[in-house]
Amino acid sequence: MPHLHLEYTANLTDLTVDKTLLRLNNVLMASGQFGSEFDIKSRAVKLEHFQVGTSLNPRGFIAVKLSLLSGRSPQVKQQLSESLLAVLQDLSPWPEGVQVQLSVELRDMDRDAYSKVAIG
Amino acid sequence: MPHLHLEYTANLTDLTVDKTLLRLNNVLMASGQFGSEFDIKSRAVKLEHFQVGTSLNPRGFIAVKLSLLSGRSPQVKQQLSESLLAVLQDLSPWPEGVQVQLSVELRDMDRDAYSKVAIG
Amino acid sequence: MPHLHLEYTANLTDLTVDKTLLRLNNVLMASGQFGSEFDIKSRAVKLEHFQVGTSLNPRGFIAVKLSLLSGRSPQVKQQLSESLLAVLQDLSPWPEGVQVQLSVELRDMDRDAYSKVAIG
Repeated sequence: MPHLHLEYTANLTDLTVDKTLLRLNNVLMASGQFGSEFDIKSRAVKLEHFQVGTSLNPRGFIAVKLSLLSGRSPQVKQQLSESLLAVLQDLSPWPEGVQVQLSVELRDMDRDAYSKVAIG
Repeated sequence: MPHLHLEYTANLTDLTVDKTLLRLNNVLMASGQFGSEFDIKSRAVKLEHFQVGTSLNPRGFIAVKLSLLSGRSPQVKQQLSESLLAVLQDLSPWPEGVQVQLSVELRDMDRDAYSKVAIG
Repeated sequence: MPHLHLEYTANLTDLTVDKTLLRLNNVLMASGQFGSEFDIKSRAVKLEHFQVGTSLNPRGFIAVKLSLLSGRSPQVKQQLSESLLAVLQDLSPWPEGVQVQLSVELRDMDRDAYSKVAIG
């Protein structure tokens, strides 16, 4: 906890994925909401097959989903969401002629049925 | 909003993925539930590693997950789910000898902590 | 139902993915919670891009998410979570020098808006 998922469409060819994940994790740590940086587990997946709407115009998106153990206030969640979106908005340059959408979702994980362990 | 995820097992070799996403998006627009086609963001992921049950018989599946901002009625969600499943059921031909399962899940996204922006 | 997602970081090179999925499915069947082994649909995805925390130390993780139709008790869900984690903990050997985290999340799927069909 927390888990961050970033999906990005394959036409966003300038995206430096690993650097982006590190920046997102840094923002999460700076929020003061998480006790240990070690707990933040983030991954990025490139989407080779996608469709935005019903048009064939060049479009793309980045979708971030942050999964938290249940219990945080709506205000905290909204702030986290906006601070992650700010990182995405700062990721220029974007490909010429591609309409890009950025989104951040926060979701709760059921605290009572979440199990974890660290090895080594 | 909405986000659609389609997962399909790699043994469904006849699946025309991009066309399927476009058909799903068209059905979502035709539902009248979404203001702008531009908002519908869909992606498909091929599953190279999967296991259905505990048998080694040839099996496969397509799993669709539609994520909506919270607030729609159970009836609307059930209708959306069934109309997406109807698209999947119409995707023949299926590989000879493979038992295929199709499923559609609808889930809510927390409206208060969802952030988005469009660029370009 | 149920759906199981396993994500693993690409630096866990000794992981036998297909065997792991079969073991997880066997544990789910042994729980007595599911009527038919055929219903258990599991997949594994390798993560090529990931970041654990804000350090560049070698780290990795396996994250399992089990999605169930809503209605099971917290006790049942906790037991399922722990029994899946036990499978992960038994997956040695782990790569030398990599800090590995294992986690299992359980989530409910909205029973009223879940549609499925089996073909062939």
